Amino acid sequence: MSCIEISSIPGQKPMKITASLAIAATIFVMASPASAQFAKPEKAVEYRQSAMFSVGEHFSRLGAMVNGRVPFDAKAAIENAEIVAMISKLPAPAFGPDTEKITSRAKPEVWTQQAKFNEGYKQLVSDAEKMVAAAKTNDPDKLKVAF
Amino acid sequence: MSCIEISSIPGQKPMKITASLAIAATIFVMASPASAQFAKPEKAVEYRQSAMFSVGEHFSRLGAMVNGRVPFDAKAAIENAEIVAMISKLPAPAFGPDTEKITSRAKPEVWTQQAKFNEGYKQLVSDAEKMVAAAKTNDPDKLKVAF
Repeated sequence: MSCIEISSIPGQKPMKITASLAIAATIFVMASPASAQFAKPEKAVEYRQSAMFSVGEHFSRLGAMVNGRVPFDAKAAIENAEIVAMISKLPAPAFGPDTEKITSRAKPEVWTQQAKFNEGYKQLVSDAEKMVAAAKTNDPDKLKVAF
Repeated sequence: MSCIEISSIPGQKPMKITASLAIAATIFVMASPASAQFAKPEKAVEYRQSAMFSVGEHFSRLGAMVNGRVPFDAKAAIENAEIVAMISKLPAPAFGPDTEKITSRAKPEVWTQQAKFNEGYKQLVSDAEKMVAAAKTNDPDKLKVAF
């Protein structure tokens, strides 16, 4: 098991993504929603930060439920998981090589170990989708496992 | 026709939302995805700014296609419209009264004319959904009208 940090959420702790490297190294065609068309690299960085901030917010809400800080609410769990899954996919095209030199909390490994990063990212998206499926079972324990 | 500006996108021009006030003034229960649970008002402001930034980015991409700056791409049009429609809904709970005093580009009218704001917001969400439907026709002219 390996761990990649995607740390572009302003004002938040880096999000650790545990990625199984046992996954077959299939070519990862990143989901490129609406194809990357950033006016300039700074926009791409702001875009991924915005998306990761939104993801962080909804992931935290799931966390609050999973950790018992707020009561489990099946409907809210599904909504939060769906938002996390949907928005998680968006920043992929915003890690282009032209954004490497722009100051952000993204680690250099995003570009120096791109295959590993892509694998971790793919795992993140896959985990988020599993979380949606777990939330839809209405079973807090299944959600906890997926979380 | 009346016009409300939601202007909380950092570094962007205010987004004008044309809202028909002819719409029956039904009680607008704002779509409250995952119920508002912001740790503090500042988080709510950052949340809505992040969401509106993402919306602005994808709305611009649609605009580029509609205005012929980039070639029409049916798949990208649908993706962009769906992202706009999905994320547009998110900031609703982030305009709580506790956020009124926090410096942002949101106009005071958000709180002083709340019914009008809600109506405009509802219209925005409805328009975004119409844009998805228009994009799905694969007809650039229909998308242009909806845009």
